[in-house]
Amino acid sequence: MGLAYICRPGASRRSTDGRSTDGGEGTMQARAQIGVTGLAVMGRNLARNFAHHGYTVAVHNRTPARTRELIEEFNHEGAFVPAESIEEFVAALERPRRMMIMVKAGEATDAVIDEFTPLLEPGDMIIDGGNAHFADTRRREAALRERGIHFVGTGVSGGEEGALNGPSIMPGGSVDAYAVLGPMLETISAHVDGEPCCTHIGSDGAGHFVKMVHNGIEYADMQLISEAYDLLRQVTDHTPAEIAEIFRGWNEGRLDSYLIEITADILAHTDPATGQPFIDIVADAAGQKGTGRWTVQTALDLGSPVTAIAQATFARVASSRGELRAAYRAMPGGIRPPVRHDEAARFVSQVEHALYASKVIAYDQGWTMIRDAAAEYGWDIDLGAVARIWRGGCIIRAAFLDRIRAAHAANPGLVSLLAEETFAAEIADAQVPWREVVASAAHRGVPTPAFSAALAYYDTLRAERLPAALIQGQRDYFGAHTYQRTDRPGTFHTHWAQPGRPETEV
Amino acid sequence: MGLAYICRPGASRRSTDGRSTDGGEGTMQARAQIGVTGLAVMGRNLARNFAHHGYTVAVHNRTPARTRELIEEFNHEGAFVPAESIEEFVAALERPRRMMIMVKAGEATDAVIDEFTPLLEPGDMIIDGGNAHFADTRRREAALRERGIHFVGTGVSGGEEGALNGPSIMPGGSVDAYAVLGPMLETISAHVDGEPCCTHIGSDGAGHFVKMVHNGIEYADMQLISEAYDLLRQVTDHTPAEIAEIFRGWNEGRLDSYLIEITADILAHTDPATGQPFIDIVADAAGQKGTGRWTVQTALDLGSPVTAIAQATFARVASSRGELRAAYRAMPGGIRPPVRHDEAARFVSQVEHALYASKVIAYDQGWTMIRDAAAEYGWDIDLGAVARIWRGGCIIRAAFLDRIRAAHAANPGLVSLLAEETFAAEIADAQVPWREVVASAAHRGVPTPAFSAALAYYDTLRAERLPAALIQGQRDYFGAHTYQRTDRPGTFHTHWAQPGRPETEV
Repeated sequence: MGLAYICRPGASRRSTDGRSTDGGEGTMQARAQIGVTGLAVMGRNLARNFAHHGYTVAVHNRTPARTRELIEEFNHEGAFVPAESIEEFVAALERPRRMMIMVKAGEATDAVIDEFTPLLEPGDMIIDGGNAHFADTRRREAALRERGIHFVGTGVSGGEEGALNGPSIMPGGSVDAYAVLGPMLETISAHVDGEPCCTHIGSDGAGHFVKMVHNGIEYADMQLISEAYDLLRQVTDHTPAEIAEIFRGWNEGRLDSYLIEITADILAHTDPATGQPFIDIVADAAGQKGTGRWTVQTALDLGSPVTAIAQATFARVASSRGELRAAYRAMPGGIRPPVRHDEAARFVSQVEHALYASKVIAYDQGWTMIRDAAAEYGWDIDLGAVARIWRGGCIIRAAFLDRIRAAHAANPGLVSLLAEETFAAEIADAQVPWREVVASAAHRGVPTPAFSAALAYYDTLRAERLPAALIQGQRDYFGAHTYQRTDRPGTFHTHWAQPGRPETEV
Repeated sequence: MGLAYICRPGASRRSTDGRSTDGGEGTMQARAQIGVTGLAVMGRNLARNFAHHGYTVAVHNRTPARTRELIEEFNHEGAFVPAESIEEFVAALERPRRMMIMVKAGEATDAVIDEFTPLLEPGDMIIDGGNAHFADTRRREAALRERGIHFVGTGVSGGEEGALNGPSIMPGGSVDAYAVLGPMLETISAHVDGEPCCTHIGSDGAGHFVKMVHNGIEYADMQLISEAYDLLRQVTDHTPAEIAEIFRGWNEGRLDSYLIEITADILAHTDPATGQPFIDIVADAAGQKGTGRWTVQTALDLGSPVTAIAQATFARVASSRGELRAAYRAMPGGIRPPVRHDEAARFVSQVEHALYASKVIAYDQGWTMIRDAAAEYGWDIDLGAVARIWRGGCIIRAAFLDRIRAAHAANPGLVSLLAEETFAAEIADAQVPWREVVASAAHRGVPTPAFSAALAYYDTLRAERLPAALIQGQRDYFGAHTYQRTDRPGTFHTHWAQPGRPETEV
């Protein structure tokens, strides 16, 4: 069952029993600058990406058939060193060894780490390029650090196509590990304006954390785009093909982004089987793989109010609840007619404003969460660099990220995008149509949970006074939870059951 | 350092060294039907509540001073057996022993369990009346079950006043334990229409789970009331005292509830120090103790779309983010003037409709979550009984809960309140003013995150088609996540990069 290939110059010559011909198992020539174990589509494409850039890449998979497939199909693309056993794989790596794990996040990752660690030495580096929860990454990093092994939890975004041709890469782990790995990862990453879409995010789990927030923002962006489509479809009488053209137009402006671009393609697509617009034959129950959920759960722990991401996540959940949809189906809806054809252009423009403003809010929430986590976990995260490395390679790549990068570069202490004057001016300009769109949706019965949440967030944060004061009063009333006053410091409790008694300072 | 009290007849006579005079430590007379360890305000009041109902109550606290205080102040109220040591406490309990832990949720609970368990015997019962996370309760129940000890995680709602005079009680744990404990807990619980506000919720962590959802619903209800107040304050020119009267009026109708009642009191209250309305001198940053957060985090794991609870939780979080509020403060707001005085009455009525409709949605979301958890964890929860036991004793007690009880009693498979005809008719009637209020808030810049989320949920679930179809298209486009079709079964993928190629069934 050995691997028998004529390898390219530079790749190891191997006999049919899978052993290197230039020595026994223990003395195999260690020439691979990087190894990848786990050769499903993401791992295979990352391995090819490394090879395309001139690296010698050791490749290994638990089931050797996958390794053989890679060699059969892609050996001509670069210098691969196939390994059947973990011992061979480790022996093939230059020291300090650099191995990338591309397996399913969770127990599989722990199993691979446990398997390989005894074969590694202090100074070696394990890169986890899966979608691990950052808390797991922190745990693994701490455990391996004790053994002198660098563990670099690394977010990789861009799907299979990005993995092959240049993803956005978010490595955590130590500065020392990045000094060695950074140049390699930057080389294989996407590039925008000559700059790599890869930077050292911060220590231990910072990379996987930022990748999680990327995905949370992605959920919000997709939901916002979907609400914009739904409004155009329901409130105007545009066809999906016409709406595709509207999105193509938007993609020429400030909304220029990969998600807007593919939305236009999807809306323009005709289902070959039925001749119907593709969008009308797709079941409207959205799936998820859990990173949106993680983002919202983590935000609650951090106290980060990511309302647009939360509503986007719950919108997917609700869409899949057939029994609830059946229970609500007969309930009455909107109270306004669709807009007249001659007013449609104005409405389309209002929706563009609403989409842009809501998107700025959603991204602002995501950055708030990253800032909160940096404070919580002691990560020294360059918030502008996060925007820079998302300009290419990843799903939320967009022109507008360069403006977020620039805003943080100009003001490293920037608390919010709305504290930056060009964003503030845009949102001030957008807020009237944004309000019109949210009000229209309410009147017409079009569900806009994320648009509405973004506007409510905007109005919450800009409020001079919030009714949170009443909540504090209620909490003091029923649970003696106390309150602060606006006019002097201290913590107070009112004796609600004893009307004449003065409040107590506690 | 012993306890030296002349106890009432029926209570143990004790010498000054804290030992019973009727024998050595091991042979102390076991006469207490129930014990309470942890005598902070909730534990003390529950102990008194048991005593008021004729039970002999062993009382214990880690710091004996608290035990002495209880005896000094309240010994005349009933039969208490003070215990300085855990051995004394256990010895004072009738078999099977029934002891209630009233300590801070988390590590303190585990520490108390670990301390007492070696002294207990198979058949004994530990009741945890703290606000434990239901997952901890499941873990503890399983561990103690192996030793033959019943662990009954029990939600107790109603604050200190409820604990003393009748709380709403939500016990989990085994049916066998409830057979013994149920009558005692039902006796000390609140009663409505002659029925106790206590029922066996389900096995292991079901009681603490339902208590958590109670608190999540409480967050939503408080936020909705606060948004209603804020709208009346900002959109009409009513004073807090006038708004208090409006709430008093609402409390005579379908909104009749404890939270509406105390809201009227709070809004009517004048700050003695300044002569200002109390609501205007309270700092508008809302606190939380985490059960709202747990509810939303758990809902995400269960796939329960509790959007109103989520928005309520995030609204508290956002209110406390001073630096974000400062960054947004200068942004422009509403685009409509307040309503004229002569139109105020109509607006008030619209807000009542919006509040009621949003409240029904929030409660419906809470019940969905309980139903989901029952399926996930195998809990046989009577959804009508949950409403029944919340009619009294707890913070969300309300007349309308009796209608939820009745709806589930009439239809045990009820999926949603909106599948019940009287609720459906009310919401159908409320939806027009509800839409007007949400649209008004958007136009006028009043933040209504929970009203808006509730309406968006309503419109999401009643939609014939959701733009979740577009999200599925996007996911298939960038990640080959596949989609289902509306016209035939199967799982499909479109080859987006190859326009002519037919979709693949996968």
